[in-house]
Amino acid sequence: MGNTFGELFRITTFGESHGPAIGVIIDGCPAGLKIDQDFITRELARRRPGQSKITTQRKENDLPEILAGVFEGKSTGTPICIVIHNTDQRSRDYSHIAEKYRPSHADYTYQEKYGIRDYRGGGRSSARETAARVAAGAIARLFLIEKGIDVKAFVSEVGPVKLEIPYQDLNLDETDQNIVRCPDPFTAGKMIDFIDQTRKKRDTIGGIITGVIRGVPVGLGEPVFDKLHANLGRAMLSINAVKGFEYGSGFEGTKMYGSEHNDEFFKDEKGIIKTHTNYSGGIQGGISNGQDIYFRVAFKPVATLMKPQQSIDMKGKETTVEGKGRHDPCVVPRAVPIVEAMASLVIADHYLLNLKVKL
Amino acid sequence: MGNTFGELFRITTFGESHGPAIGVIIDGCPAGLKIDQDFITRELARRRPGQSKITTQRKENDLPEILAGVFEGKSTGTPICIVIHNTDQRSRDYSHIAEKYRPSHADYTYQEKYGIRDYRGGGRSSARETAARVAAGAIARLFLIEKGIDVKAFVSEVGPVKLEIPYQDLNLDETDQNIVRCPDPFTAGKMIDFIDQTRKKRDTIGGIITGVIRGVPVGLGEPVFDKLHANLGRAMLSINAVKGFEYGSGFEGTKMYGSEHNDEFFKDEKGIIKTHTNYSGGIQGGISNGQDIYFRVAFKPVATLMKPQQSIDMKGKETTVEGKGRHDPCVVPRAVPIVEAMASLVIADHYLLNLKVKL
Amino acid sequence: MGNTFGELFRITTFGESHGPAIGVIIDGCPAGLKIDQDFITRELARRRPGQSKITTQRKENDLPEILAGVFEGKSTGTPICIVIHNTDQRSRDYSHIAEKYRPSHADYTYQEKYGIRDYRGGGRSSARETAARVAAGAIARLFLIEKGIDVKAFVSEVGPVKLEIPYQDLNLDETDQNIVRCPDPFTAGKMIDFIDQTRKKRDTIGGIITGVIRGVPVGLGEPVFDKLHANLGRAMLSINAVKGFEYGSGFEGTKMYGSEHNDEFFKDEKGIIKTHTNYSGGIQGGISNGQDIYFRVAFKPVATLMKPQQSIDMKGKETTVEGKGRHDPCVVPRAVPIVEAMASLVIADHYLLNLKVKL
Amino acid sequence: MGNTFGELFRITTFGESHGPAIGVIIDGCPAGLKIDQDFITRELARRRPGQSKITTQRKENDLPEILAGVFEGKSTGTPICIVIHNTDQRSRDYSHIAEKYRPSHADYTYQEKYGIRDYRGGGRSSARETAARVAAGAIARLFLIEKGIDVKAFVSEVGPVKLEIPYQDLNLDETDQNIVRCPDPFTAGKMIDFIDQTRKKRDTIGGIITGVIRGVPVGLGEPVFDKLHANLGRAMLSINAVKGFEYGSGFEGTKMYGSEHNDEFFKDEKGIIKTHTNYSGGIQGGISNGQDIYFRVAFKPVATLMKPQQSIDMKGKETTVEGKGRHDPCVVPRAVPIVEAMASLVIADHYLLNLKVKL
Repeated sequence: MGNTFGELFRITTFGESHGPAIGVIIDGCPAGLKIDQDFITRELARRRPGQSKITTQRKENDLPEILAGVFEGKSTGTPICIVIHNTDQRSRDYSHIAEKYRPSHADYTYQEKYGIRDYRGGGRSSARETAARVAAGAIARLFLIEKGIDVKAFVSEVGPVKLEIPYQDLNLDETDQNIVRCPDPFTAGKMIDFIDQTRKKRDTIGGIITGVIRGVPVGLGEPVFDKLHANLGRAMLSINAVKGFEYGSGFEGTKMYGSEHNDEFFKDEKGIIKTHTNYSGGIQGGISNGQDIYFRVAFKPVATLMKPQQSIDMKGKETTVEGKGRHDPCVVPRAVPIVEAMASLVIADHYLLNLKVKL
Repeated sequence: MGNTFGELFRITTFGESHGPAIGVIIDGCPAGLKIDQDFITRELARRRPGQSKITTQRKENDLPEILAGVFEGKSTGTPICIVIHNTDQRSRDYSHIAEKYRPSHADYTYQEKYGIRDYRGGGRSSARETAARVAAGAIARLFLIEKGIDVKAFVSEVGPVKLEIPYQDLNLDETDQNIVRCPDPFTAGKMIDFIDQTRKKRDTIGGIITGVIRGVPVGLGEPVFDKLHANLGRAMLSINAVKGFEYGSGFEGTKMYGSEHNDEFFKDEKGIIKTHTNYSGGIQGGISNGQDIYFRVAFKPVATLMKPQQSIDMKGKETTVEGKGRHDPCVVPRAVPIVEAMASLVIADHYLLNLKVKL
Repeated sequence: MGNTFGELFRITTFGESHGPAIGVIIDGCPAGLKIDQDFITRELARRRPGQSKITTQRKENDLPEILAGVFEGKSTGTPICIVIHNTDQRSRDYSHIAEKYRPSHADYTYQEKYGIRDYRGGGRSSARETAARVAAGAIARLFLIEKGIDVKAFVSEVGPVKLEIPYQDLNLDETDQNIVRCPDPFTAGKMIDFIDQTRKKRDTIGGIITGVIRGVPVGLGEPVFDKLHANLGRAMLSINAVKGFEYGSGFEGTKMYGSEHNDEFFKDEKGIIKTHTNYSGGIQGGISNGQDIYFRVAFKPVATLMKPQQSIDMKGKETTVEGKGRHDPCVVPRAVPIVEAMASLVIADHYLLNLKVKL
Repeated sequence: MGNTFGELFRITTFGESHGPAIGVIIDGCPAGLKIDQDFITRELARRRPGQSKITTQRKENDLPEILAGVFEGKSTGTPICIVIHNTDQRSRDYSHIAEKYRPSHADYTYQEKYGIRDYRGGGRSSARETAARVAAGAIARLFLIEKGIDVKAFVSEVGPVKLEIPYQDLNLDETDQNIVRCPDPFTAGKMIDFIDQTRKKRDTIGGIITGVIRGVPVGLGEPVFDKLHANLGRAMLSINAVKGFEYGSGFEGTKMYGSEHNDEFFKDEKGIIKTHTNYSGGIQGGISNGQDIYFRVAFKPVATLMKPQQSIDMKGKETTVEGKGRHDPCVVPRAVPIVEAMASLVIADHYLLNLKVKL
């Protein structure tokens, strides 16, 4: 279970790292949406390994094949199925870990849970699975673009290197101008250096991605358990390597007084209700209030290291594990499109959920 | 929508702050569980306002009435319905805000979303709703106790006052020994002082609750979207006033190298597989690995202040809002049983989901 | 599990025959709907035992208490909770069957499934549970009335007595003019006689209810698994004592040639697309086509007899069982409002599901 | 929506008749199940057109490709994805109906609902969709075989030709010995003749399939809305062309007295509780009682005729429609494996749902 996400804009994914293919069924995409296949391909390319010296050098082709749900270039209202074939599998790279439990991977927990696992490249627990999310998220983004909603993410921290400029003062269209996907070139340079040094040490480092969603109408989000930020949080925490989620003032907000933190309402010159500050992060009582939604997602350092670590094997014997092949020293640059995809899926779903609440 | 939580151990809640009652249906509780009604009552008492000088002085009786699903003291496998009547409603306290949008409350978003709202005490968006969660969570805890699983939470930060002792070195059974629910008496004293000073300023302050779950068997959690921590995160983020969630190393983990962060496996003297460190927070690949699960939940300062704030009313006219009656200066002491309840619901649900995964 | 019905207009019921109360949470009712509490009470009165000599003489008060979700007479978009207290329980009537498995009841299967059961009046398996459906269905009907959709049901067969007049030639507003709820007075008389004779024999008899839904817009129903008639069928089959469901031409349609059965399209004088015949029963490919939806529901004879039957008890010993107290000789007259309620819930749910399918 | 079926053994299907492929994701299949790919292929072959003179002569290859979820021949607990490529599409056959609404097809309702449709071969509404169900059902059957549960279906009526022998007196292993899939050779001959005559008239005819499930343990089925027969009924009614469903005594049972209809319990020589008769159809109170489950499914005559019919086109103009190419004169022989597949999916799902109901 657990391979389905969303209520009305609902995706179900499948696929192992080294099986024939991964893919996704998108059920609930409204009919009549122009499906730009090149857009999906470009989004997949952004997630793809091998884009630069600071990401893994695997070459994944990641050409999305649409098997259903699109007719004459438009969605038909029936399930859209997108398949991405695994073309660069190199199964031999993984034989050395068939019997071993890699530290801080899912080898041990999958084996215990299921009694069997596809050990090649982590199988279902591989980050390869996120390609299916990006493909589905691209469809959601095409829908949101029609509705005037803009979803953006960028790298705001890499290890100790932090982007100090608030997102409002950045041009988020420039995020992809550098290989670390930080929209400030100066900070980007420092991040790239840090990752490169880490790579040379055969080590890895964590980081933080900030997401910003603009143009969301008032009213998205369901009270109580499906609060908009609760579903955004679940979406982000379901991405491999994520350790934390905060929105609006987040953890820092716990140190503020109510008199500082409250966002006072006013009516602007056009008669639109806004707030002076936005510590609420665009969501009040779990429902969007029309202000920018912004959030931060914490990623741990990649668990696969290019140096030996102590561990045990399936028989409980001590052994050592050492990463081989091609792995990222830092996951956040490639995770930017994944964060955008998951955010888009959540917003699209809540957009549809909100269509029927008034008589 | 959004009033149902869980797949197999599933709750659906209802009720407004100033309606006749709030309550919950629990569907999926295994049959034959001894239902200790006093335990439910005690859990509700822990959440209740008016427990001390640092919490609101409202007197809510919160006597749970079981309407269905229990026969001769045991669960029958049919839905358990628990109703808690609203006995101390004092509707007149709220008439002054019927037309006003309180800053950082849900008044504006509910009004826009639904075109109508029960403005008395915040209606459905009131923290009163969490009493239903605590009642349901008590049932889940009774189930988990049978399975040897222990769920605990405590206050670890109040504004700038931070508990620096790791949870392993604390006696979590002493959490309720003081009114702020911090298991270290020294830090508790500082927290109480800080809250009391804040209250005297007619202001409010945020805080952080730490949760610890021990005795969870290996294998709980579903890969991909229903990762155990993703569902814990959604559960916590769905609680009123929560702004962030992290587990294991959390946001701090983003600053660590992989060689520091990885949890190396070993086999203890009894032949049980464990990890030397536990930055993973007891969850790897979304699945419990048998180590302690621990997490932190960030609560913003309470939005209702005892001093005037600028705002607008439903007609868009400028106005001022000032809290009246009885409100908490800091929500975290009373939120401890809510965090425990939501964690218990998630673990109970995943316990049941995990029963059928192997042939 | 299994106590929730519907996707967007979703109900969850609870309650045992002889517990304190039964009830329902309705989640997803659009905000702003005028909630006529008298209408709910009247619908419950139609289902109530003791209405006539041909129904059981128990007196159930069945006054619906609305605990949440309604403010100033209108739905607020939050969950509506309706509770109906069990006021006429007479537990002593059931002590004689505590240890016995009544033939063709759910005693044995509940006991085996759960290892425990509330044996008083059948507990959760009692037809009393359907009162919660009728209350929820009344809310759905109020919604459908706003949309111009009319849901009607009537008794069309009792044992060998069959109403031969097609529904189009009947005045369905006269259904409640007689105690058997057959809109043709002549047939109704024969049905009443037959039931009365059966009752005198201390026996019971089955029957058939026909449902007719008019004014359904084109487009309701989801392809593949949630075809409109599939969900109607599930809804009807979930009612106690139902053994079969057919719609449109039904089982008789299997004997027809395609050239007879096909419904040819035409455009009427107003330019509306219609079909000359309606063997499709208003649904094509699982989606409503604007014609009348009609269906038939088969009810078995009531299992509780006023004469001794062979059976076994919980220890596997042979015993006899004999009905005591107050039971219907034929369930169909009282099941008419239940069929209408379930049909209304299905149509309301699909109405909401259909709001988001086009861009 | 509506392309997902089941709770714990859950399938999601996709695909249009003339798109690149159809397929299914199966989520929740327990790990460790031996996946016999030949078995899936054989089941698909049973559903395939072109098997005999009484079925359509299209040649569909229907080779299932497993893209995920199986490792070294066994299920891994992750989603199983099966794709079946559409190799014999002949799109040109359908150009003549692009603008026309075929009588008693889904052309009109899909067009109205979605504003767009893949008109080639009916698109998503084509019976081709059922191949995905058969593939998924094959996996469910492999699971049920492990549990000793046997699912069988056979043709019991074709137009006026009825199999009068009760299923207990038939050898259901002989169902596939003839092309009409009726286990009694004499009746089969009459059915084949009738279909052949119908075909020569360029007409079509309906029929009935009987299903029998043996070896189901006591306890499957959830009370109230997910009664075992309610979910079986929904499953069957979701198959194209189905107009009715009944189980046990069915519609005939409405004419019986309770004293005839009740199934009296006894204990057999091995101490197993059974019933003398089985009008309940193996289900009491929605829960299996260990006796055979049996049911009947009504299929209407195929709507595509080889002779002209009146209709209208998308502009509302009168036109005629005439079937071209290759279509079945009677759907029931090929629907037998579909009925078995859907029944298997329901039972597998309820088997898993029943694993967690007792403490």
